[in-house]
Parts: sequence; C-alpha cells; structure tokens
Amino acid sequence: MTNFVFQNPTKLIFGKNSISSLSGEISKENRILITFGGGSVKNNGVYEQVINSLKGYTFFEFWGIEANPDIETLRKAIILGKEKNCDFVLAVGGGSVIDGSKLIAAGIPYEGDAWEIVKKRDFTKEKVLPLGTVLTLPATGSEMNAGAVISNRIAKEKFAFYSRYPQFSILDPLTTFTLPKFQIACGLADTFIHVMEQYLTTPGQSPLMDRWSEGILQTIVEISPKVLSNPEDYDSMATFMLSATMALNGFVSMGVSQDWATHMIGHELTALHGLTHGHTLTILLPGTMWVMRKEKGDKILQYGQRVWGISGTDRELTISKIIEKTEEFFRSLGLKTRLSENGAGEETINEIVRRFEQRDVHFGENRSVNAAVTRQILERVI
Amino acid sequence: MTNFVFQNPTKLIFGKNSISSLSGEISKENRILITFGGGSVKNNGVYEQVINSLKGYTFFEFWGIEANPDIETLRKAIILGKEKNCDFVLAVGGGSVIDGSKLIAAGIPYEGDAWEIVKKRDFTKEKVLPLGTVLTLPATGSEMNAGAVISNRIAKEKFAFYSRYPQFSILDPLTTFTLPKFQIACGLADTFIHVMEQYLTTPGQSPLMDRWSEGILQTIVEISPKVLSNPEDYDSMATFMLSATMALNGFVSMGVSQDWATHMIGHELTALHGLTHGHTLTILLPGTMWVMRKEKGDKILQYGQRVWGISGTDRELTISKIIEKTEEFFRSLGLKTRLSENGAGEETINEIVRRFEQRDVHFGENRSVNAAVTRQILERVI
Repeated sequence: MTNFVFQNPTKLIFGKNSISSLSGEISKENRILITFGGGSVKNNGVYEQVINSLKGYTFFEFWGIEANPDIETLRKAIILGKEKNCDFVLAVGGGSVIDGSKLIAAGIPYEGDAWEIVKKRDFTKEKVLPLGTVLTLPATGSEMNAGAVISNRIAKEKFAFYSRYPQFSILDPLTTFTLPKFQIACGLADTFIHVMEQYLTTPGQSPLMDRWSEGILQTIVEISPKVLSNPEDYDSMATFMLSATMALNGFVSMGVSQDWATHMIGHELTALHGLTHGHTLTILLPGTMWVMRKEKGDKILQYGQRVWGISGTDRELTISKIIEKTEEFFRSLGLKTRLSENGAGEETINEIVRRFEQRDVHFGENRSVNAAVTRQILERVI
Repeated sequence: MTNFVFQNPTKLIFGKNSISSLSGEISKENRILITFGGGSVKNNGVYEQVINSLKGYTFFEFWGIEANPDIETLRKAIILGKEKNCDFVLAVGGGSVIDGSKLIAAGIPYEGDAWEIVKKRDFTKEKVLPLGTVLTLPATGSEMNAGAVISNRIAKEKFAFYSRYPQFSILDPLTTFTLPKFQIACGLADTFIHVMEQYLTTPGQSPLMDRWSEGILQTIVEISPKVLSNPEDYDSMATFMLSATMALNGFVSMGVSQDWATHMIGHELTALHGLTHGHTLTILLPGTMWVMRKEKGDKILQYGQRVWGISGTDRELTISKIIEKTEEFFRSLGLKTRLSENGAGEETINEIVRRFEQRDVHFGENRSVNAAVTRQILERVI
C-alpha cells in the first residue's frame, strides 16, 4: 500500500425532501450567486424548493451553464458575481453546473482571466468562495470532490483543475425522477468507469479498496436495469445517487495507484466531437482494456471473477470474455461502444494523436499510455 | 434508504514514516498537551519520533491513560492542561488514549467536573480543544470519529459520549509491528464487530453500504491469519489499520439502521469484570445472533453467503451454521467466546439485568433488546 493523505470535508445531506435544509447551511449575511443549467429545474420543482428555502436571503441567479461547461459562459457568471459582490456560490444542477461553479467560485475573487485558473491546474491553496450544491443528476461525483473539468469550445480544449471541496451538498433522490433515460445511462456508465479508473491496475495494492470498488461496480450492475426501467423507484435511485458520489470522492482510492487514461482520451473526444462525457468512456474503457491487457491482466481477472462471476483456466480467453462482458454491459444501458457509431473516425484519431504527441503525454498507472498507445486504443474501437 | 447527514472532516495521514509530518499539522503558537498510555511507545520508537517532530514546540506530557480510560486519570490530565494553559491535545496511543483525550480536550475548557460531560452524552456543539492523534493500535476507529467511551471504576460504569472529530490522525503501520498478539486479535475482533453493529439488521436498506460492510468483513477474514502469524507483514498490517479506521468512521452506515446491543451489553461486562473490550464482543455477538435470529435472519443469510460462502435450502440450519462459523472465526483469533471462560457467571448476568431493568433499556435496531432479552443473550453464551 502506498502512503496517502485523505481528507474530505464536504457535508452530505442526503434524502427525501432534503432541499428544505438549505437555509440552515448558509448565513443570511451571505450574498449568494445561484447557478443553474438550462432550465429543467423549473419543470421538476427543484427551483421552487430552492427559492422557497432561501426566502429572506440575498441572491442573484445565473442561468445557462451548459453540458461540458464552457469558459465563455463561466466568464459571464464571474462578471455577475463580481458586480453583485457575491461571497457564496450555490450550484443547482448536475456535474456540469457544479464543475462550472467551482470555476466561478474561484474566478470571482481572482483578478486575472478564469482560463488561467484552469491552466494552473492546482488551485487548491488559492482563495476561492465557499460553494454549496444541490445535485440533480448522479454521475460525476463533483458534489463531493475538489475537481472540475472545463471546456474551451473556441480552442476545442477540455481540461481538469482542482480547487476546494463543496462546503455542503444536498442530494435528494426525488429530483432524479424526471431525468431522461439517456442521462441516467450516461450517469451509470460514468460512475462505473470512475471506479474502474481507480481500480483497474494491479491486484491487492489495497485489498479493502479493491473490495469497496468492486462493491460499487456490483451495485451499479445490480441496480441498472431497475433505474432504467423505473426511474421513480426511490430506493434504486437513492442507491444510484449514493454510488455516484462514493465513486469519486477519494473513498476508494486510499493507498492505490490510478489510471485515468480513458478519461484523458475521452476529454479529447468531447472537445472535438461534443460527445457526452459518459458516452466517450463506454467507447474508450473497452479499448483501453483490450490494448492494456498485458499490464492489467491480473486485475481484469479479479474484476471478472468478483463482479461478473467469470473465471476459467485459459487466461487469455477469460480476459477476452471479461472485456466483452464489460462492453455488453454498456450496450445494455443503451449506450454506444464504437467511435464510428458516434460519427468519429480516422480524422479524429489523427487529431487526438497529434495533440498527444505535441503534449508528449504519458497517461495510466505506469505512464505507458503515450500517443502511439492512444492510437492503438482508438483504432481498436473504431 | 433512510435520510442521513454525513460529514467527517478528519485528515488521515497514512503510511510508512508518516509521524514526521506531525509538525506540519500543528502551529508553533500552540501549547500542546501530549497524552500517552503506559509507556510502550518508549520501547517501539514512536515517542522519539513524536518528540523529534515537535522540536521547538511548547508541549507538556501526560502519561498513564489506561485501557478503558478512567475518569479519575483523565481528571488529572485535565488539571495539568488547565494549569499549563494548553490549547491543543495530541493523543499518542491506541483507542483508549484517544478516547480519553477526547474527554481531556472537552474538559480543559469546561468549568464543571468532566464526568458531567460524559453524562451529557452529546457534547458536539460545545467548546472543545482541537485534537490530533498518532495511532499505534488499530481497533476502535476513534482516530476518525467523534465518539469516546469512558469508564468510572468507582461506580463500575462505562458510558459513551460524543464530541468533535480529531483534526488529523497519523497512522503509520510500522508502529503496530511490536503489538502483542492478544491486542492484535482483539483489534481484529473489534473491527469486525463494529461493522456487524452497523450491518446485521435487515438486507438492502442501502445496498452499497451492505457491500462496503461485507468488504471490510471479507478483508478482516482474509488478513487475520497473516497479521497473527507475522505482525511485521507491512501490507497486511496496513490493510488491518485502514480497515479498523473505515469500520467506524460513518463510511459504512449511510442510510441504514444500526444495532449496537452487543456493545451496550459488552460495556457492562468490562465495567463489572475489566474484560478487554474486543473480548466482550466475541462473547456477545454470537449470543445476540442466536437470540435475535428471527429479526435478523434474512441479513444473517446474506452475510453468511457473501462473507463465508455458506448457503443452503434449510433456512434455520443455515442460519445456525453461519452463527457457528462466526464464533469459530473468533476462536481462530485465539479469543474466548463464553462468559464462563472469563470468570463471569450468573452473578454477573443478574447484575447486568438489574442495571438494565433500572435504566429501562431498549437496544438494537428495533429497540427490542430490553433487560429480559439481555438475560437470554447472556444465558446463551454462559
């Protein structure tokens, strides 16, 4: 087990009708910038609950943070926050709204341009405004971690940066009942693959973390058919919501090496093609497993046996079966697993490889996923 | 899943030679009261590492916090802390030293007698000094939770109270290499049973938490023979240490009901007979399982299948096998599982039942463990 430091101070307020507890978490002295996505919260009652809970508070609304939040949009929110002297940011929405709001919370007290914050990557020690969240879409885990991924559509770029953990996050599973099936499927895939990025390296680095990761994977496999067929099944949606948060809040990565190559390549696919984040991952994880099967073989076998009950005497055949099963699972969610199904092809591959050559990337737990290996991964799932 | 609020702000600093990071966690302005147990830290190098790391700091040492920390001892530490105007408490030791130090950190700024704090039970909102810990014995989880159990030997009482989470806890598995086998065995049992108290109710209240609880149980079962036969196996000791912390820091109890009857009865056994805490639990958990098998049957079956691979068509026979297996596991650790093996008998049972009748207790997830049921549990394991 490698040495590690763990601290996650976010207060999680979880359950039915928990949005009403919002007022207890923010001071009436605060000047709140409330940030929203496209407006679905006006149809499902979330907006009303938030506003009702904040009666008597001073707040300003910023609407229109898009999926894969764009730096242009966030700059506008930062200007509003500065103008209104806001000193608290409340994000109401999914991972994109929360990610964007992390940049807004960092950008309001910052004097330079917000894209500089993203480029600094580590903003954990700088001054940022406190952030609270009301989560409406289980997927990214952003509600309980310090990371955020920001897009720059003009430059066709997408990068992660790290600032502060949300002070609190309110998770009411009832808010997920009206989600479109496709978003639920992407959220399930995103959760699953967040775990895989922290898990699929070598066995036994931290046996308890292996078990906890497998626990999330098993749970997602178990509840997926239920939440897809009945998104008003409270207990299953609550389990999905809790799993998504626990998949990327540091709880399953204590003392282990991590991969994240799938995400790094996936961000490029989103930047170039606008693909939904979860959807890029269902294409790229199987590709990564096929190409990295030598390095990851022992862990793939452990995963296959513990999560899918697949074992066998022929090592290579068993590994292949396990990767096929993983791809099959993603397809059972109604998601695609090939580039060509999403309108991407050789041109996209060439551009990603060109960028990775230029940046001289080395992703993965062994830093072995460079531009050439990325080409193999992408060609495998074309 | 029931609604819940989760927040655990403790900073965990985990790994080889991590004690040297101590100085980075406390300000030189602080006046530190360092609290110790009986002196084993002077033999295993921990004391030296702590003192070396705090060169140039102002600190005062208090020695002699015993197992099942006694209110008399803690009063003396509080007097020293008040005299020296201490504003930070650093606990160096196992769960007893840390539990005792939670009372010391609460007692120094408190004007009344420290036993009043214990009797208040909820001290979470009161002023207490910040507490840091250097853990040397994996068992109680006190290094990452807000609870503490304090004994009053004169009154033969033992009660839990709740104050603040440690600000940081340093866990260096190397410090555990010199632990006596009996203490390791009790720590393994304590960890196992902490999980069972949060888990062994009804299935599926929070499916992910079920998996995570089972993950700790499986891990403890897996590593127990290794740590008992070779306490210098770093990776196994690290896994044991991490498991003990994760067993009682709120991570596996999100959205579930909890039991704790075993602990409540166990505290009485310690108060009356001075039995090591972990040892009281290995006697009482099987007793609780035998007597509560109707209420807990479905969960016992899930536990048996997932942790021990025991299943069968005859429900009652399978449940019995699973309880026997659990008792057998405790015996494999070298621990006793019967009252009579520990010099306790009818007289002890009568006294515990008398106390519970007087206090009109109702323990367990369904509040069904009263004085009469406690008698059944104790008679079952005499």
